Amino acid sequence: MTRSELIHQIKTKRSFLCVGLDTDIDKVPRHLLAYEDPVFEFNRQIIEATADLCVAYKPNIAFYESRGVAGWQSLQKTWAVLPKDCLSIADAKRGDIGNTARMYAKAFFDHEVSGLGFDALTVAPYMGHDSVQPFLDFEGKWSIVLALTSNAGGLDFQTHRDAHGVQLFERVIEKTNGWGTIDNLMYVVGATRGDAFTAIRALAPEHFLLVPGVGAQGGSLQDVCRYGMNGDCGLLVNATRSIIYASGGEDFAERAREEALALQGEMEKELMAKGIV
Amino acid sequence: MTRSELIHQIKTKRSFLCVGLDTDIDKVPRHLLAYEDPVFEFNRQIIEATADLCVAYKPNIAFYESRGVAGWQSLQKTWAVLPKDCLSIADAKRGDIGNTARMYAKAFFDHEVSGLGFDALTVAPYMGHDSVQPFLDFEGKWSIVLALTSNAGGLDFQTHRDAHGVQLFERVIEKTNGWGTIDNLMYVVGATRGDAFTAIRALAPEHFLLVPGVGAQGGSLQDVCRYGMNGDCGLLVNATRSIIYASGGEDFAERAREEALALQGEMEKELMAKGIV
Repeated sequence: MTRSELIHQIKTKRSFLCVGLDTDIDKVPRHLLAYEDPVFEFNRQIIEATADLCVAYKPNIAFYESRGVAGWQSLQKTWAVLPKDCLSIADAKRGDIGNTARMYAKAFFDHEVSGLGFDALTVAPYMGHDSVQPFLDFEGKWSIVLALTSNAGGLDFQTHRDAHGVQLFERVIEKTNGWGTIDNLMYVVGATRGDAFTAIRALAPEHFLLVPGVGAQGGSLQDVCRYGMNGDCGLLVNATRSIIYASGGEDFAERAREEALALQGEMEKELMAKGIV
Repeated sequence: MTRSELIHQIKTKRSFLCVGLDTDIDKVPRHLLAYEDPVFEFNRQIIEATADLCVAYKPNIAFYESRGVAGWQSLQKTWAVLPKDCLSIADAKRGDIGNTARMYAKAFFDHEVSGLGFDALTVAPYMGHDSVQPFLDFEGKWSIVLALTSNAGGLDFQTHRDAHGVQLFERVIEKTNGWGTIDNLMYVVGATRGDAFTAIRALAPEHFLLVPGVGAQGGSLQDVCRYGMNGDCGLLVNATRSIIYASGGEDFAERAREEALALQGEMEKELMAKGIV
């Protein structure tokens, strides 16, 4: 999905919601255990209930990988039913030297080799240029580089300042900026980092930002929009637990839709206030 | 495998060699393609040919993941035949927020859930404490945190200095040092970083270091030992391509053994010079 297609979807659906699919087999409603693949069935129903309200889905690969071969099968089936009008993001946070990064790129981007053909992949920057470039080199795909994450540990290294007062996450944005373009590179910025969005927008005014941390992690959608939204929206705001685990009962998909609808409504207001829709 | 068991293996085998299993289906000798699972058969024969010469095996997860479900099956079968007297390392460089890190820990450590029960996992530190701790909390397992990597891009962020002149990789070691112990925490340090070993040993005198970059990447075993070896050896030196792809023909396992034997011989000399054996 290209940048202009993504912006078109945001304007059409009046939403910049990304739904996280961190599907834990121990948390899916019990009645789904009768299905051959409860995780896939859970995802399928969540997707069906929310597809018109969001512009992206983001399976968290750890939740699939933890179940080995069976989990990988659930992931492939889930990928295959992701709607074509939504950006599909593999949240895998991979990062390794060049020849290995190329293998990870195949794993998530090259459907013919791996059975998965995601539009985008989250990438860890610690190992530098040759660990990021192979993902960016993959034609028609997005790399979403970790900049400033939403968790408490995000402050251990990412906000570390150099002799000029530049924080590590700022240096990551400055450097990686030159490796990709606004058409194939996004950044992960936690919703819990309200005030840092100003510094990030100074370095990356046009890039899309993938923003986890709204909902269960306590970030504010209003703050994210105030400091992070640009003229094309420029945001994909992710919610996971507040949507997919809104109910643990047979009404899980219905309740997920209600939660997604509430977020979409708030997002529509923000888009209107900014004159984007 | 405990620290004392690992040291015992090093002294018994007079080796601190780790063999990387970055097995690329496009590079395995053609005659193996007749097997149902050529990657597993390749690994099986490499392991059989080198098990008495090395103390660790390190499958690079990207090479398996790139083949989706089939790759994950090859990985499970390979894990199952790794000798019990060798440390098994999943080179996956995972790192994510707490609840996700726990899932990755299950994926590689918890055999009953995932089908894989590695002794050790490589971990990326960018996301800080709560992204590393869940791996360290797994009883009887090792976390091997990226400190200073062997690739060119390793210099993009890892050697970035703060206002006090402390480089990022030094800060990573200082911080993570308090999260684990010498019994469950190691560091990745590239063999191409000879002079940095002195700084690393000042911060982590007793920790084991996993050292890739000897062989195809050009690092020197002598330099690594001069600056990095401690009284317990404290090193696992990895070689991959120079061993597993020593020959692309039917003699691949035999040639792999010759290369491993040559490295083991050099390692024995270093251990003797240091009075460890």
